[in-house]
Amino acid sequence: MSEVSVAVIGASGYTGSELVRILSGHPDVHLKAVTSRSHVGKKFSDLHPHMKDICDIKMIDTNGLKELDLDLLFLALPHGVSQTFVRENITKGLRIIDLSGDFRLGSKEAYEEWYGMEHTCPELLEQAVYGLPEIFREEISKTQLVANPGCYPTSAILGILPLIRYDIKKKQVINIDSKSGVTGAGAKPSPSTHYPSVNDNIRAYKVGDHRHTPEIEEVLGKVGMIGAVQFTPHLMPVSRGILTTITARTKDRIMREQLKNAFEVCFKDEPFIRIRNEAPSVLDVRGSNYCDIYWQYDERTGNVVVISAIDNLVKGAAGAAVQNMNILFKFNECSGLRAAPLSP
Amino acid sequence: MSEVSVAVIGASGYTGSELVRILSGHPDVHLKAVTSRSHVGKKFSDLHPHMKDICDIKMIDTNGLKELDLDLLFLALPHGVSQTFVRENITKGLRIIDLSGDFRLGSKEAYEEWYGMEHTCPELLEQAVYGLPEIFREEISKTQLVANPGCYPTSAILGILPLIRYDIKKKQVINIDSKSGVTGAGAKPSPSTHYPSVNDNIRAYKVGDHRHTPEIEEVLGKVGMIGAVQFTPHLMPVSRGILTTITARTKDRIMREQLKNAFEVCFKDEPFIRIRNEAPSVLDVRGSNYCDIYWQYDERTGNVVVISAIDNLVKGAAGAAVQNMNILFKFNECSGLRAAPLSP
Amino acid sequence: MSEVSVAVIGASGYTGSELVRILSGHPDVHLKAVTSRSHVGKKFSDLHPHMKDICDIKMIDTNGLKELDLDLLFLALPHGVSQTFVRENITKGLRIIDLSGDFRLGSKEAYEEWYGMEHTCPELLEQAVYGLPEIFREEISKTQLVANPGCYPTSAILGILPLIRYDIKKKQVINIDSKSGVTGAGAKPSPSTHYPSVNDNIRAYKVGDHRHTPEIEEVLGKVGMIGAVQFTPHLMPVSRGILTTITARTKDRIMREQLKNAFEVCFKDEPFIRIRNEAPSVLDVRGSNYCDIYWQYDERTGNVVVISAIDNLVKGAAGAAVQNMNILFKFNECSGLRAAPLSP
Amino acid sequence: MSEVSVAVIGASGYTGSELVRILSGHPDVHLKAVTSRSHVGKKFSDLHPHMKDICDIKMIDTNGLKELDLDLLFLALPHGVSQTFVRENITKGLRIIDLSGDFRLGSKEAYEEWYGMEHTCPELLEQAVYGLPEIFREEISKTQLVANPGCYPTSAILGILPLIRYDIKKKQVINIDSKSGVTGAGAKPSPSTHYPSVNDNIRAYKVGDHRHTPEIEEVLGKVGMIGAVQFTPHLMPVSRGILTTITARTKDRIMREQLKNAFEVCFKDEPFIRIRNEAPSVLDVRGSNYCDIYWQYDERTGNVVVISAIDNLVKGAAGAAVQNMNILFKFNECSGLRAAPLSP
Repeated sequence: MSEVSVAVIGASGYTGSELVRILSGHPDVHLKAVTSRSHVGKKFSDLHPHMKDICDIKMIDTNGLKELDLDLLFLALPHGVSQTFVRENITKGLRIIDLSGDFRLGSKEAYEEWYGMEHTCPELLEQAVYGLPEIFREEISKTQLVANPGCYPTSAILGILPLIRYDIKKKQVINIDSKSGVTGAGAKPSPSTHYPSVNDNIRAYKVGDHRHTPEIEEVLGKVGMIGAVQFTPHLMPVSRGILTTITARTKDRIMREQLKNAFEVCFKDEPFIRIRNEAPSVLDVRGSNYCDIYWQYDERTGNVVVISAIDNLVKGAAGAAVQNMNILFKFNECSGLRAAPLSP
Repeated sequence: MSEVSVAVIGASGYTGSELVRILSGHPDVHLKAVTSRSHVGKKFSDLHPHMKDICDIKMIDTNGLKELDLDLLFLALPHGVSQTFVRENITKGLRIIDLSGDFRLGSKEAYEEWYGMEHTCPELLEQAVYGLPEIFREEISKTQLVANPGCYPTSAILGILPLIRYDIKKKQVINIDSKSGVTGAGAKPSPSTHYPSVNDNIRAYKVGDHRHTPEIEEVLGKVGMIGAVQFTPHLMPVSRGILTTITARTKDRIMREQLKNAFEVCFKDEPFIRIRNEAPSVLDVRGSNYCDIYWQYDERTGNVVVISAIDNLVKGAAGAAVQNMNILFKFNECSGLRAAPLSP
Repeated sequence: MSEVSVAVIGASGYTGSELVRILSGHPDVHLKAVTSRSHVGKKFSDLHPHMKDICDIKMIDTNGLKELDLDLLFLALPHGVSQTFVRENITKGLRIIDLSGDFRLGSKEAYEEWYGMEHTCPELLEQAVYGLPEIFREEISKTQLVANPGCYPTSAILGILPLIRYDIKKKQVINIDSKSGVTGAGAKPSPSTHYPSVNDNIRAYKVGDHRHTPEIEEVLGKVGMIGAVQFTPHLMPVSRGILTTITARTKDRIMREQLKNAFEVCFKDEPFIRIRNEAPSVLDVRGSNYCDIYWQYDERTGNVVVISAIDNLVKGAAGAAVQNMNILFKFNECSGLRAAPLSP
Repeated sequence: MSEVSVAVIGASGYTGSELVRILSGHPDVHLKAVTSRSHVGKKFSDLHPHMKDICDIKMIDTNGLKELDLDLLFLALPHGVSQTFVRENITKGLRIIDLSGDFRLGSKEAYEEWYGMEHTCPELLEQAVYGLPEIFREEISKTQLVANPGCYPTSAILGILPLIRYDIKKKQVINIDSKSGVTGAGAKPSPSTHYPSVNDNIRAYKVGDHRHTPEIEEVLGKVGMIGAVQFTPHLMPVSRGILTTITARTKDRIMREQLKNAFEVCFKDEPFIRIRNEAPSVLDVRGSNYCDIYWQYDERTGNVVVISAIDNLVKGAAGAAVQNMNILFKFNECSGLRAAPLSP
């Protein structure tokens, strides 16, 4: 397979920076351009000094893309901005992997309810494929537009998937309690992400109201889930990582063996899912594309508790995007994603 | 009211140290002795240098207690050790507030199942009063032996109490997802509390298996809860604090107004409960005896989500013990506990 | 002594908030007003929820001060803003403790060089007393205008003071390596104080260029220091606290005993200085007005290494201000400042 | 160049674990064995779950090494244990890279003074080469025994080297103020590395007394430094990383340009040194083999301040060891070490 020419659109945030970090170690990728609205002309490594000597490419604005012969764009843009860019560029024939939330929900109505803004190219919602290979690998390989999953949804959906596929759970609201590192809130400073507000602290936010809720429900609905989820996100004093604790009521007479099989079979050929026999921590996956999953059946209550851990910037964003690129271009799915987790 | 003479038994751990810190600012207390097995003869402040010039008392062993005219003992001992000490000293007539788990459960059987050791004075289990003033203030005021509540149970029970008292919840397993600071795991170093294991990390532990589960269920059972709780504790990179996120199914046709009333009425005269209209963080209560509580009703799911925050060493241990002492000796219940939270 | 009526000018930052926290526990203070430019009409505790039920006073703008009968103003304003406020209010006869840097340096020229802005009331520079009781207690008690010391200078000056007073050091540049918690950088979010920029990280900043340098040199010059200091500040992943490591060349034939005496005698009546016999940590003083100091003489090199630890918001700002108020109004100097450090 | 067969001796600590992490991504290495005294028979990934699916090799004891055809041993053993192992194995002809302190000092006397134990094979001290390629690349390429540098010395020596080589500094004690992450203290739990002791805290330790002091002085002595260094290490709330702040008196009439040249020329062909034009942070190098260096000349004082940042487990230990292996076996010096830093 020959090299693929790519550009990263939007370089100042964490997902853009992380894309460049991962792509810089990918053997089959030529990173031709990195764009930025506010830093045109600066080196990428001026903005992200850890990348000095690794990626010193000068950032351009999106007009400069026209002259390049590109195969794929990674969009690391805010939602809203992303849909405009996709609308204007999708007809040019290149592939797009969009890391924003703009193409994750299936309907204009759902988008507008949860994102509080208009969707200006709803016709593309149908065309976009939700980029979670563990469910949609086949569809991803054929699409032009990948809607890269949200970080929380990745951690929640992967933990719940075996319960749905193998008919484990009762029809009851599933509880999802997620704890996210602060990079999940983006690189823009704000009072709630100011160091002294987060350090030695934890808080819940957007209780019952987070826009990843419908994303989780829609995707799980496609594999057969009936009903809603109760999703409570928390901001914890960690830079990278999401730990999601899922509690679901099992059907009567579910046996531990059935659960074991469900998790093992569901993920047996997945290169980035590790079924763990002890509760994972976010450090176990930091810097890697792994999603570690643990489950425990509680006989006292009849519940199954599932715990998943990802690095929100890798499997929850940039790593998943590279995995999707690998699928799109028929590279080995692990190419560029083999780095061991950095722990501690 | 005249001064009360007290001793703190067990000074090397966090609860012992915290008791001394709080008692050192209590206007009606004379701290006559602090005991330690392994540090007899050393100053308390040699062990806890932040207390230099504040409490430089020399530590004694428990034999030395005999010569002192004491009104009250605070036991900051490991469970197991505590029951022996209580058994041998309760007949001497002084009051005991035990901060271990030894007298919190109602039956020898439950204790032995969850604590994995024999209970050698089960006759005292009945005599002991569970020291949560928000439920048992009256009983506390008359007892000789207070079983000071566990940290997780305090945060969980206070958040759930209005739902039970005011008949809000359906008979379904309540989900309790708790995140604890590391002081909750004690002062003894271990691989799981080694700095690099905790920093920038989070993990769940003892899923479905933590001994605070029966404590929560028993106490809530006494106020009318039917059924079990699903309790999942997590260790987070915080020194002090527990944040507990509770999800409960409400009965049909519960109105937001009913919930509002339940929480307000339940705690209206409680000096240390603050009903918050935004999700609290553990920093909001750090160093103080407050329990901050927030609730949100989710119409989509029919669930109520309750979030409580405490300092595990204060309201979750030493502060609660001092509050219980105030009740026992008819001091103002806030005496010695008025310090504002230290935030950030 | 009767109660003193005070106002805190500027409530949104950390020093303002910390002043209110400390004053709320001061037995001789009536906090009559808290001002804010952008939050007039809001409760103080809406801005600082940890203070709910403790200080729910409604914030006013500074015009509202006129109607109040006040004895003392604490200014928790940015530098530049502070000098204007002082210029306009000093003639009204009340006492002012200014927590900004506006009146700390002795000359208009030094101020303008290091602060990069005009000083519009240089005549007041002479009138202002530098509010470090360990050097200027007498002068503080008689002044109308106290220039409350900077946080870094407090930690550095107190560590160096015995070396100057007791003629220990050679005339050589003293090295001052300081590590500050992030609250020292203020409450305003910025890229360099964004949680993921600070967490698990450390960096130096303003090397050779920090405006606390001349403050340290001027004050130590007044007690006899000749020459300069090399001051290198660092931002570390801690919320509160400054640890300062000082290295100074001793004169030939200095004996350990001389050093011991210098530190002991220098601070023997100081209520907030604790000479430690092991290296202090910032947790040892957190939330308290203590400055812990340790020294070590290195025979190999002929250097003395001094380490000091303070809470930058207490002894480094609000606590020192309250100590100065106690001196001004002849209260017990420890009044309101007796809280034990909160550790861990 | 064909593949090299290696074993890692000592797998339970951080350096052993980090060696395996780096070697697992090295294209020219066959990791044939990992040894452990206390975990024989367990999988490496049972001990280090982040390595699951990457290195599931079963650990053996050192007796098992005999049957393997090995080219190189990495010793990740405690000092003292290491010298015994080297003494017993060096005659077998394979190369050894020792990550302990046992062969870093040049004389039995110095070792015994600073390490407080006997050195039982002093004849090997002369044979060992100090494994800092930036000074001893040539010697490393020819030796059988590499003494891998200490983490603090690496950060200090690299920062000071240009000042010595290019005759910048005056003969005066150089001040070295280092801040280390907790992994530098090893994986064994202890009171001083217990999470609540470190979190939100900082402290100095072994002031004037740390055994890395003579290591720094000896190595710099070999390139021409006259005199001593004042080395003060600190433990900071960071998992990985050392930031070292160096202050040195420059000779009279040193010009900024000379300094610039010294740093640029000294490191111009070094693949892992990055001269930075702003103060580096430890996150800038985390997980990588880089040493970032910044210098600033202070005209006021005549001092140069140099700041260096490394990951103590990579350039300060396992990465340096792999770099040394690359030199020994004539691989590209960057092989296996090209991972970009993980920031944030």
